[in-house]
Amino acid sequence: MKSITVELADRSYPIVFCPGLITGTTGAGQDVLAVAAGESVFVVSNETVAGLYLEPLKKHFGDRMLGAYIMPDGEAHKTLDQINAIIGALLAGGHTRETTLIALGGGVVGDVTGFAAAVYQRGVPVIQVPTTLLAQVDSSVGGKTAVNHPLGKNMIGAFHQPKMVVMDVETLKTLSDREFSAGLAEIVKHAALADWEYFQWLEANQAPIMDRDSACLMAMIEWSCRIKAAIVAEDETEQGKRALLNLGHTFGHAIETLSGYGVVLHGEAVAIGLMMAADYSVRSKALIESAPEQLKQLLTAFALPILPPKGLKKTAFLQAMGRDKKATSAGLRLVMLRDLGRAEVTSQIDEAALEQTLDRFLTDR
Amino acid sequence: MKSITVELADRSYPIVFCPGLITGTTGAGQDVLAVAAGESVFVVSNETVAGLYLEPLKKHFGDRMLGAYIMPDGEAHKTLDQINAIIGALLAGGHTRETTLIALGGGVVGDVTGFAAAVYQRGVPVIQVPTTLLAQVDSSVGGKTAVNHPLGKNMIGAFHQPKMVVMDVETLKTLSDREFSAGLAEIVKHAALADWEYFQWLEANQAPIMDRDSACLMAMIEWSCRIKAAIVAEDETEQGKRALLNLGHTFGHAIETLSGYGVVLHGEAVAIGLMMAADYSVRSKALIESAPEQLKQLLTAFALPILPPKGLKKTAFLQAMGRDKKATSAGLRLVMLRDLGRAEVTSQIDEAALEQTLDRFLTDR
Repeated sequence: MKSITVELADRSYPIVFCPGLITGTTGAGQDVLAVAAGESVFVVSNETVAGLYLEPLKKHFGDRMLGAYIMPDGEAHKTLDQINAIIGALLAGGHTRETTLIALGGGVVGDVTGFAAAVYQRGVPVIQVPTTLLAQVDSSVGGKTAVNHPLGKNMIGAFHQPKMVVMDVETLKTLSDREFSAGLAEIVKHAALADWEYFQWLEANQAPIMDRDSACLMAMIEWSCRIKAAIVAEDETEQGKRALLNLGHTFGHAIETLSGYGVVLHGEAVAIGLMMAADYSVRSKALIESAPEQLKQLLTAFALPILPPKGLKKTAFLQAMGRDKKATSAGLRLVMLRDLGRAEVTSQIDEAALEQTLDRFLTDR
Repeated sequence: MKSITVELADRSYPIVFCPGLITGTTGAGQDVLAVAAGESVFVVSNETVAGLYLEPLKKHFGDRMLGAYIMPDGEAHKTLDQINAIIGALLAGGHTRETTLIALGGGVVGDVTGFAAAVYQRGVPVIQVPTTLLAQVDSSVGGKTAVNHPLGKNMIGAFHQPKMVVMDVETLKTLSDREFSAGLAEIVKHAALADWEYFQWLEANQAPIMDRDSACLMAMIEWSCRIKAAIVAEDETEQGKRALLNLGHTFGHAIETLSGYGVVLHGEAVAIGLMMAADYSVRSKALIESAPEQLKQLLTAFALPILPPKGLKKTAFLQAMGRDKKATSAGLRLVMLRDLGRAEVTSQIDEAALEQTLDRFLTDR
């Protein structure tokens, strides 16, 4: 059984690859999950995922104390109200600090469950069992948890590393094409910011990836997780290098905010944000001119959008970028591409280049 | 200027004693607070305390960005709703991760503000400025933050160490007698669990303490903070020794829960809980028989209750003890007195002794 360790001293944990573990198609590695969870287990999932995988997951725990909370689907429910409801269910079920929470679902379930685990009785263990591509390569690894406030996304949260992350690539077979592609945006981001070899591998494997070939997906997810794990190990709480993972996200968050949550998927906003970050990087003389075209070809092959929705206004966009929580009081910070495979964080913004990028992507459309 | 360091590696912080700093009667040590707070400051307080000390506090920050949120008074407002409101005010005010929160008030303000700081954008610095005796010797030191859930007290929280704790004993002059005494309960607890010499000092200084002599209060608060700081330094997240600080609290929480929050003050419940823990310790042959009488005399001198309110039922009491969040799934844990000045945590409960203690304190009254 393949596994990667996220190296964080006494908070280190494994990412284990167990195809079929949750979907129930194979029994490989069953013990991993059961052993890690301990004597008392509480699962949080959403309506869609619970319908598919809650029963097979339960089988791993035999007759151990098992509670579950099924939340409604979607980003709109990534709220403090859901935290309150989960904690109410934990208390009503008599769950103590000994209980392990299991997040079974996509990014929203992972973020909400992770935050509930961070604050229930000042912290209980959580195991992440991500069932979407986005969650497998991004949100389940690294310990960032959060819910939204009406005035800002992910504004209420904590760093709370999981005890384990369990990847079953077979869960990706039930994803819609649109959600699958949204996950690929974060994968392209990983390659673009950290690994030119990975970028070329993605270009060479477009067809099997889009066909969701299991072996190919495993290799890809592992590669992305290694990149993310290395960055998180170096900078757990985003004091420095971890900000590289925000490549495309400052633009992307503005797109999400102005479009209204849920109209553009997070991964789609990231794809567009990557294009805008690349365009800005070229205009501020950091990146060679041919790079955005190469990025565009890969994103397009992965069925991702490369232009923001029509009707977004420049002033509102700039404001939405500034309110992104990664912005410091000293001003905006952006992640720039120096090359395909190399990025850097900068707070020295080339205002003229930024204006030109926004003009190109937002106007005359 | 006196100061104590809470030794927690990269999370170490000073407790500084600046009489007159907040009340404005002296200017001593003004810079400490202003320097620690940085460029952007957001104060949380309650209606009563803000009326007394918000304006003098503001003077320390000159024209630096300053926001404030004034919450209603009382334990009933130690809720997730207040967290949501504080975070809304932070976002509406454009506060970033660079902002330092300042908790100006008693235990409720400290716990709520500390938790808001723990989760706002996954963590911003907080300075505790406790204005009650209970908060100065207990809740402001050690990084425990929390709000209540309708099904349990302090069930939603985080460990989030402050950047600094600022003690102005002059604020204690405006406390009601009842609140002042409630704080003394935690002080007696510190002496009883850790320091016989301190216990004797308290006995010898009853009169100046009750007269709120500034020098005497400073010496007492410093002594209590040293005891608490040493325990927290050894066991930040209550895996072991820190549980000693729960002496009297398992009984005390049951009294608070069954009486309804606010009827019995937390400190009053702790005082009664100390008497019950001492009684149980004698009955289970851990403590000499004369100790409870000595404890009773000190608590009584400090105008604290030593018996629970009438009408509490044994079955409900036992259940309320069990639901205390310090209870593990393995069963109840209690802090026992071995001596005045020495305590230990045990999960081996002498059921007969416990029954006798409850009979004595709850029935025929």
